[in-house]
Amino acid sequence: MQQSFPMNGGDGPHSYRNNSHFQRQDMNVSRTMIEEAIAKKLDVKCFSSNPFRLADLGCSVGPNTFIAMQHIVEAVERRYLAQGLKSEMPEFQVFFNDHVGNDFNTLFASLPTERRYFACGVPGSFHGRLFPESSIHFMFSSHALHWLSKVPEELLDKNSPAWNRGRIHYTSGPEEVSHAYAAQFEHDMEIFLSARAKELVVGGMIVFLILALPNGIPASQNPYGIMFDLLGSCLMDMAKEGLISEAQVDSFNLPIHLASPEQMTELVERNECLTIERMELVNSRSKLVGPINGKEYAMYLRAGLEGIFAQHFGSGIIDQLFDSFSKKIMESSHQLESGNKEGILLFVVLRRK
Amino acid sequence: MQQSFPMNGGDGPHSYRNNSHFQRQDMNVSRTMIEEAIAKKLDVKCFSSNPFRLADLGCSVGPNTFIAMQHIVEAVERRYLAQGLKSEMPEFQVFFNDHVGNDFNTLFASLPTERRYFACGVPGSFHGRLFPESSIHFMFSSHALHWLSKVPEELLDKNSPAWNRGRIHYTSGPEEVSHAYAAQFEHDMEIFLSARAKELVVGGMIVFLILALPNGIPASQNPYGIMFDLLGSCLMDMAKEGLISEAQVDSFNLPIHLASPEQMTELVERNECLTIERMELVNSRSKLVGPINGKEYAMYLRAGLEGIFAQHFGSGIIDQLFDSFSKKIMESSHQLESGNKEGILLFVVLRRK
Repeated sequence: MQQSFPMNGGDGPHSYRNNSHFQRQDMNVSRTMIEEAIAKKLDVKCFSSNPFRLADLGCSVGPNTFIAMQHIVEAVERRYLAQGLKSEMPEFQVFFNDHVGNDFNTLFASLPTERRYFACGVPGSFHGRLFPESSIHFMFSSHALHWLSKVPEELLDKNSPAWNRGRIHYTSGPEEVSHAYAAQFEHDMEIFLSARAKELVVGGMIVFLILALPNGIPASQNPYGIMFDLLGSCLMDMAKEGLISEAQVDSFNLPIHLASPEQMTELVERNECLTIERMELVNSRSKLVGPINGKEYAMYLRAGLEGIFAQHFGSGIIDQLFDSFSKKIMESSHQLESGNKEGILLFVVLRRK
Repeated sequence: MQQSFPMNGGDGPHSYRNNSHFQRQDMNVSRTMIEEAIAKKLDVKCFSSNPFRLADLGCSVGPNTFIAMQHIVEAVERRYLAQGLKSEMPEFQVFFNDHVGNDFNTLFASLPTERRYFACGVPGSFHGRLFPESSIHFMFSSHALHWLSKVPEELLDKNSPAWNRGRIHYTSGPEEVSHAYAAQFEHDMEIFLSARAKELVVGGMIVFLILALPNGIPASQNPYGIMFDLLGSCLMDMAKEGLISEAQVDSFNLPIHLASPEQMTELVERNECLTIERMELVNSRSKLVGPINGKEYAMYLRAGLEGIFAQHFGSGIIDQLFDSFSKKIMESSHQLESGNKEGILLFVVLRRK
């Protein structure tokens, strides 16, 4: 059974829509790299058919997805011109994908009126097939693929060495917990890559941007690892106050994995239909330079994580959880600032053989 | 500016989801005719490309659209088998289209889990382009095309002979009002047909089912015409009670047109890319046989029309409006029963040349 925890819908103060500028900054960091990949590696001559179909996997509700899709459409148009195919300029069709529980109503209501593409929403998990065979020319995914399809079961088994007592992530946990996360990620990515290889046309491309770690660096030195630990310790404080039970914390784990380039390379190489055109750690400088603003970090994480916490602990604890997180992050700002700031995002370009 | 009044969303007591069995009965009436059209007129041999793409235009939130799409997929599969193309059986992709304001979240959440197609939602008015050129093999539309893209402007002009004072529809109105409705319908259908002709592959098919009138029969003898008149008179009663103003009634018109086969034939013939494969008035017997249940009729109309009334008159009047409609319909049951019950739906099959 796959789990689904969409970003906060609507356009309220805690919505993803109004709290996703960090992700947008990351996307801007990678914009030139995406344009380069299209300009240098996408051979549009080999695509016989009109239209050109592209997809955003894990698009949430916008506006980031609209900005990304617009950039990609423009880059592909330039590529057609550069390849001398002005007269064969295709129409574009964009498939916006996310879990069934995503707020597609908000997504559709915010579609840019001046868009140069036909828009569709595709509900469903990308840990499975979403599109017909050989039907998509370009796929994109930003800040989505680090989500596991589910929490590894052994984390919840009191008799397993991977029981993740008193923590909500593998950061600072025993090796067995990390291994369980890694195994789940590998399983998920295998399914993901195999589905995408079927759906991409020959010569098609997939570009993704995910939370990551440099090879050999532990999660405890990564800003996200540190933040997940802090969230866990906020929950343990609440358990001590009796607001929730320790058992509730023990049985909760964030299904988010931070992959290394090494791990990702190995996974792609297992798939016989995809080649790595580029894989690179990038920084999201804007987020980590300058003094840390606890409230801003809390809003950012809340827009993405409120759903999963509320489902397990009830929505009554959410305000206090992110309030105390916002304080705790200020207390731990030296730890965050001295943590590894290099390469917390992995930029990957794959091509369908 | 196009107007959009989606069916009631969600799954509450007044939702379209729970009050669309009349439409479902109509669809069942036409099921055999759709299967026949596919079996006899759809030459799948001429479709080179996998997948087979189909669309439901004005799909609302289900479940009717899921039933229709399932039937069509099965009929197309049988057609592939009958044409000796078992080994070339395509994958199916279904595009569920409705206005941006349609409740796509409910639609997606209710998608059948055992479906044999890839599902997409396409937000936007079918009075315009929705899909890339030559990209759809089969289109379907049920109970949607009688909606005009907007109320003809002259109906609101006090100085025009088409000012529709004290009524909400052209039924029982002066000729000028009927003409204004007809002109708007013709304009809308021209745009609709031209868009669909571009989007259908050569040999592709569009089947639709809309509210209609036999040639030469006035709307005042049609059950829908009678019901729209009754709704108008309920509103005038409320105006007399001072709950709303007469000016509010004067400035409100239901943008629904009942076409005749003659009118429809003429419109299709103006389009050079489409041929009429079948056009036939059909009955929706289940709805009209037996004693009339006022409450059931009121629920049926409310699920489809609440939005448009609430937007103009405020949601405060809705309960009373449909309560008094439900009483009025019982008082006028002889009129409804003696009205023209034959051919209140038009079944149309068009093929892309």
